[in-house]
Amino acid sequence: MPTIRILTEAELRAAVPLDIDAVECVENGFRALARGGVVMPPILSMAIADHNGEVDVKTAYVPGIDSFALKVSPGFFDNPKIGLPSTSGLMVLFSARTGQVEALLLDNGYLTDVRTAAAGAVAARLLSRPDARTAAIIGTGMQARLQLKALTLVRDLERAVIWGRDISKAEELAAKLIGPLGIPVTAEPDPARAVGEADIVVTTTPSETPVLKADWLRPGQHVTAMGSDQHNKNELEPACLQRADLYVPDRLSQTRGLGELRSAIEAGVVAADAGFAELGTILEGQAPGRTAPEQITIADLTGTGVQDTAIATLARQRADASGAGTDFNS
Amino acid sequence: MPTIRILTEAELRAAVPLDIDAVECVENGFRALARGGVVMPPILSMAIADHNGEVDVKTAYVPGIDSFALKVSPGFFDNPKIGLPSTSGLMVLFSARTGQVEALLLDNGYLTDVRTAAAGAVAARLLSRPDARTAAIIGTGMQARLQLKALTLVRDLERAVIWGRDISKAEELAAKLIGPLGIPVTAEPDPARAVGEADIVVTTTPSETPVLKADWLRPGQHVTAMGSDQHNKNELEPACLQRADLYVPDRLSQTRGLGELRSAIEAGVVAADAGFAELGTILEGQAPGRTAPEQITIADLTGTGVQDTAIATLARQRADASGAGTDFNS
Repeated sequence: MPTIRILTEAELRAAVPLDIDAVECVENGFRALARGGVVMPPILSMAIADHNGEVDVKTAYVPGIDSFALKVSPGFFDNPKIGLPSTSGLMVLFSARTGQVEALLLDNGYLTDVRTAAAGAVAARLLSRPDARTAAIIGTGMQARLQLKALTLVRDLERAVIWGRDISKAEELAAKLIGPLGIPVTAEPDPARAVGEADIVVTTTPSETPVLKADWLRPGQHVTAMGSDQHNKNELEPACLQRADLYVPDRLSQTRGLGELRSAIEAGVVAADAGFAELGTILEGQAPGRTAPEQITIADLTGTGVQDTAIATLARQRADASGAGTDFNS
Repeated sequence: MPTIRILTEAELRAAVPLDIDAVECVENGFRALARGGVVMPPILSMAIADHNGEVDVKTAYVPGIDSFALKVSPGFFDNPKIGLPSTSGLMVLFSARTGQVEALLLDNGYLTDVRTAAAGAVAARLLSRPDARTAAIIGTGMQARLQLKALTLVRDLERAVIWGRDISKAEELAAKLIGPLGIPVTAEPDPARAVGEADIVVTTTPSETPVLKADWLRPGQHVTAMGSDQHNKNELEPACLQRADLYVPDRLSQTRGLGELRSAIEAGVVAADAGFAELGTILEGQAPGRTAPEQITIADLTGTGVQDTAIATLARQRADASGAGTDFNS
């Protein structure tokens, strides 16, 4: 009968804040993906149309990590009507040597928030100009907040602007962030102007029609599009990929079907079989990243099982070190 | 913060024995599958060759059931060398209305054992002759034991024979079963004779080469093949499907790739696009089952997510009724 460590959301929030360790941990996951030997099956996805819900399951085995995580992410979009968050879920950590359950991470989606924002920091550290000082965040949700915080971990930002369809939400978020981040954060009602002012742009919406136009881009910018993770989502006008000097998917096989690349392929802007070096490949120095300050770079993040395995392993290590959690015998 | 009920293997063994309620519960799952509206995505499967392991994830949403189960089944085949069982795993029960985690069923594979054996009983009750009195079990593992017990729930068996490659294991199992089942159970060293004597044959092996020959079959028999659940497994000589009057898959889309049907298609005995009524379809009276006593019938069981959702829901209901389990706030 194995002993299983159970960690609650509160314990996981204490153990794994969004900090530079989380960024390094996720970066190491992407590097492992590039080194080969990672097994990452296609996402299992189940739609429950009867209740306006969907469930995604991701997992990945990473050689050299003794555990693998399996993550279940339900999204039920009528939940807010009854006072519940749309997203929830948990991760289960298994021994990669025996398959035995090692830990249940009852995070209600928190670790996904962290590893997703951490990937944004990984992309920005790799691809944005080191002298980037201004960030524009498109969107006003949880990831808008976390992606901006993640950027501050890897770049010396001097200020940030936020745009959202509902300007009052952008203002609300900006007001909330000034204190914790220690830089001026303002809401900008004109998205073109928000983007135009920024060295780094992060799109964080569930939009199905582009929120970022190619015309708004200017030399030297880096864009991370992290909102699209479904066949129907699209944040970047397809011409953005044409305009960019470098397009970097987190996982090419996924972005072709779920990311901004999908929309660009459908629009005929990019060939369906076009090859692009992945984030991990560039991190490992197997392909070039940004090679000149005036280049425009785009990172297309759809979320990968290696990030889940990486962050869940970090969570378990932290919990082991601090004695957090409850042991359960099954 | 949702309250999550945690049930251990011991609690689940007490709550959900292999009994007629479990059989009914699984039968209702198959019926729901036939009535439509069930969402059952393809199995997520991940091989971890570095450690001779594999992980399968199944799930299904069944209209009318307020929860859905997600089951993770690791199989790590070097585990016995270090004193651990090859298979383990757990089920997670989610609300089908909100996606919130409702229960963690830390069953180490026990509920899978039960729902798999229960499906054997469903198939035998539907397809075998009501006057079936003798069973032959091919194989000597956990499912050999449980499939025989399951048959006794739906047919008035007078005796049973067991064949295994290792006759001493067959003798050992036979000796163990006589008491609990209350009928004569004997080991039979000749598989042809074991099959020849039986009204119902159940193959329960992980074999990759046929353990049942078409020549051994005789009119009036029912065969359930439940061992094959992978692309490389095969228990029935392909000609068996030719010889049978009725072939019944649990889920046609799965048996084409994972079941005995796969081998028969590869052998050219059955057309790749041949259609067959599924177990649930026949249960619901939408297609004929056995129509004459002398017919030979074959059920091909690869295991379905609806069985998992059905048995997990039963487990939770039983636990709620008895107050079993531990509540956990996350």
